[in-house]
Amino acid sequence: MSESTILSSKHETSSVFAPRFDDNGLITAVVTEAGTGLPLMVAHMNAQAIKLSIETGEAHFWSRSRKEIWHKGGTSGNVLQIVDIHTDCDQDCLWISVEAKGHGAACHTGRKSCFYRKLIAQDGEVSLHMTQDEPLFDPKDVYK
Amino acid sequence: MSESTILSSKHETSSVFAPRFDDNGLITAVVTEAGTGLPLMVAHMNAQAIKLSIETGEAHFWSRSRKEIWHKGGTSGNVLQIVDIHTDCDQDCLWISVEAKGHGAACHTGRKSCFYRKLIAQDGEVSLHMTQDEPLFDPKDVYK
Repeated sequence: MSESTILSSKHETSSVFAPRFDDNGLITAVVTEAGTGLPLMVAHMNAQAIKLSIETGEAHFWSRSRKEIWHKGGTSGNVLQIVDIHTDCDQDCLWISVEAKGHGAACHTGRKSCFYRKLIAQDGEVSLHMTQDEPLFDPKDVYK
Repeated sequence: MSESTILSSKHETSSVFAPRFDDNGLITAVVTEAGTGLPLMVAHMNAQAIKLSIETGEAHFWSRSRKEIWHKGGTSGNVLQIVDIHTDCDQDCLWISVEAKGHGAACHTGRKSCFYRKLIAQDGEVSLHMTQDEPLFDPKDVYK
């Protein structure tokens, strides 16, 4: 067993939370609905977003487009109340289980989940088919 | 409504599968267990990995460490049989629902899921607590 394998094994069973951020200081966060396990969205966190999420119990992310901390639901009222947070074997990803408050919609399009289209492959072509009902809110009413 | 908003809206309801790869030609793939919704792992796919996954019905990824296509379970026998694939609103992420074959373990540590540690915050300190039982297989027996 090589030294790197030994170090890796320790890291994988460690009780020390040591998130491995990428070159931009970010870690991927997968958000699912508590109870059902439905994936709601995938976003990114920096160290400050993790800290705020833990301290407030509401999901905070790093907005890569706006380059600022993003308190999810701060505008729409659709905050994501955190039930628990897990990290994966090599600590480069977080899984955040939440209860979606407000309209119960995590997606900015007004839908419950961002994953509202399924891939259908037919005759070598792939197309997308809607799998969710109409949006739970009208984005025009929420994002002024 | 600005032009970019109109374009964005079309993209969000389009039936055209147009994955948005990052600068390295990769897209994040969240893998969950069909039925339970348990997140099993998060990995990355390039265009070829997506094509192979759709064609074979078994999850293929791009290994960022080995810089090659990674047929998950090709060594261990723990292939991930794809039930369905969804994409998110802005098509920069895939959600892949699978049945884990072989030992039923998606994690290279032998555990069912890579997310086997939960964050516990106490007195301002965060530590990790194991949430899953013993591994389903011994990696030493599988990865020779």
